Amino acid sequence: MTEKTQVGRLAVVGAGVVGLSCAWRAAQTGWRVEVIDPAPASGASWVAGGMLAPITEAWPGEEHLLALGASSLDRWPGFVTELEAAAEAPAGLRTDGTVVVAAGAGDRAELVELAGFLARLGRDVERVTARELRRREPSIGPDVRGGLCVPGDLAVDNRALLAALRAAARRSGVRFVPAAATAVSSGPGGGEVTLADGSRSAGDEVLIAAGAWSGALHPALAGLVRPVKGEILRLRHRAGALPPPSRTVRALVEGRQVYLVPRHDGGLVLGATQYEAGFDTEVTVGGVRDLLRDAERVLPGLAEYALVESVAGLRPGSPDNLPLVGRLAPGVLCATGHGRNGILLAPVTSDAVLALLAGTPVPEEAVAADPGRLAGREVGCGSG
Amino acid sequence: MTEKTQVGRLAVVGAGVVGLSCAWRAAQTGWRVEVIDPAPASGASWVAGGMLAPITEAWPGEEHLLALGASSLDRWPGFVTELEAAAEAPAGLRTDGTVVVAAGAGDRAELVELAGFLARLGRDVERVTARELRRREPSIGPDVRGGLCVPGDLAVDNRALLAALRAAARRSGVRFVPAAATAVSSGPGGGEVTLADGSRSAGDEVLIAAGAWSGALHPALAGLVRPVKGEILRLRHRAGALPPPSRTVRALVEGRQVYLVPRHDGGLVLGATQYEAGFDTEVTVGGVRDLLRDAERVLPGLAEYALVESVAGLRPGSPDNLPLVGRLAPGVLCATGHGRNGILLAPVTSDAVLALLAGTPVPEEAVAADPGRLAGREVGCGSG
Repeated sequence: MTEKTQVGRLAVVGAGVVGLSCAWRAAQTGWRVEVIDPAPASGASWVAGGMLAPITEAWPGEEHLLALGASSLDRWPGFVTELEAAAEAPAGLRTDGTVVVAAGAGDRAELVELAGFLARLGRDVERVTARELRRREPSIGPDVRGGLCVPGDLAVDNRALLAALRAAARRSGVRFVPAAATAVSSGPGGGEVTLADGSRSAGDEVLIAAGAWSGALHPALAGLVRPVKGEILRLRHRAGALPPPSRTVRALVEGRQVYLVPRHDGGLVLGATQYEAGFDTEVTVGGVRDLLRDAERVLPGLAEYALVESVAGLRPGSPDNLPLVGRLAPGVLCATGHGRNGILLAPVTSDAVLALLAGTPVPEEAVAADPGRLAGREVGCGSG
Repeated sequence: MTEKTQVGRLAVVGAGVVGLSCAWRAAQTGWRVEVIDPAPASGASWVAGGMLAPITEAWPGEEHLLALGASSLDRWPGFVTELEAAAEAPAGLRTDGTVVVAAGAGDRAELVELAGFLARLGRDVERVTARELRRREPSIGPDVRGGLCVPGDLAVDNRALLAALRAAARRSGVRFVPAAATAVSSGPGGGEVTLADGSRSAGDEVLIAAGAWSGALHPALAGLVRPVKGEILRLRHRAGALPPPSRTVRALVEGRQVYLVPRHDGGLVLGATQYEAGFDTEVTVGGVRDLLRDAERVLPGLAEYALVESVAGLRPGSPDNLPLVGRLAPGVLCATGHGRNGILLAPVTSDAVLALLAGTPVPEEAVAADPGRLAGREVGCGSG
């Protein structure tokens, strides 16, 4: 840890993975930090699957996002080492890698296309037959027609991670304020946060990291961050059932995406649906039915697993799937709009925020995330 | 309410619907009652669907159970009136009736057989076409090929019922002891209960009403009561979704039974799987998948409902599907082994227990439930 010198006061709005990472690391470098959240670590970060998978998430046209994700993935091992030392608690990183599989003929064609795209970008991707796939992951069922092995895409236990981040933040002197913020603005001394009870909290800098709720906090974010609902199921291996896979399994099933992320304790996270339905966090019958059907097609032994939890969260969607990390106004920063990638992008986002706080250049790959790219964009008309 | 005269001390082991009903009504007639349960109202009664459906549950060969159930159903309206007055809270009775539907050709034949059986017994059953069924319950989908209307089979909100029973019991002077019982025996002064901490609680009478856990409490019940696991889902209507049915919908889907019980608040209880798996209360992926698939086949609009809860309970199964209500030994009574029918049978069971406590004859239909019928039965060999 670097030596602390008091450099100023930072208020972070939002205690998800992005807010907590930034708060912890800012406190480490000498900032006096408070984190404002009525229910820390309970939003999208809590619901998430925890994939650290920029390569298997990649898609032609989203090269900026791939570069940003790959840059953050490179930072993950060091981030975890430092975090676990600071928290004296495990963060639940898994380094077994990822397989991407296809359950239908059309799905297979899409995987071949993805493999070619990644090979051209020089990524470490291996095409494997169905037979070879089952040799490596015996729980994969006979409907699966082949896939890709991507050793570089990892996973983390999001809830262990959040607990470690909270512990590390507390130990670094971060103060938690259990209140809801309603607005952030520039003030005479820097940034200002208005709380739900009408009171104000001022800092030299305010960081908006409120996920799907960020759009309502500052005019410059209005309409740029929208909630994208995702339903997720938490399963657990039961005695007598087939063992879970050791790698993350991502599957295409008749064009639908499903993923299964193993945990160290026999847990298996199954996700995720995707709806644009406003601030709705109810789990639906149709969502659960789709997830179970597609997952059982890939891993038929899941029938005997326990269904431990059904939950929905709201990803903070941005107009171009890149996050919004940068300065909005004097005293006001933002780190939001991370969509499906908040956990993956937490290390590079916190590096960018530390640079913004210090007035130094952000990591090269994070330049594209500056919210200025969307300034003046027409909201909601699809013409931007 | 009858006037109270102190007639003795009664210890009831188990605060499910049967134990609470007996405790409340015994206290009303002057007994000094304590109810022993480490977690009142949390077992099978809490998980239950709440059908009061002896007619649509009937099956050739189980005429004693039908007579007992019909007798208890007759008591339900009076029971609820008295309970709601005593508790000053609603018990959630629904009197809209029940439909039984068939989703496959084979299922239809089974319904025709059931209709004939019930007609011969003089029960009020109406065969209706698919079209007429959908006129009465528009949420029923096109896969359904016809069914039966059974206006006499009702339903109750099991959780409202339990809350009302607890309130009525407390108001009648029942004392709740939050402890686990490990054994019941005859003692010098009547019955005795041994608690998990080794202490004993004596009463003039002890009533074993501990559901699936009853078998371990007294030698005469050993091996006669076994846990029969049932998984159940709680759904809720969402804005924009098709309204729920007004009647209970029971369905046969390719030979599997599924039921949907509406609640006054837009809730809909979907049940239930049936496994003989010991004391296992984990919800499985396969169980949830089966329930959702079969339910959506009957009510396709359910896809848009919220899935609020997935839970499993343990029905107390008996060797012949009749409950065990009677005297086991001096000072020791039992009211257990109600299987799928604990809520339905609570009124007639409590009448029988009151009669046993008073030394008067039990209701005629409850004579067949005397546990003496199974005395000396070989346990677990299928030869009894």
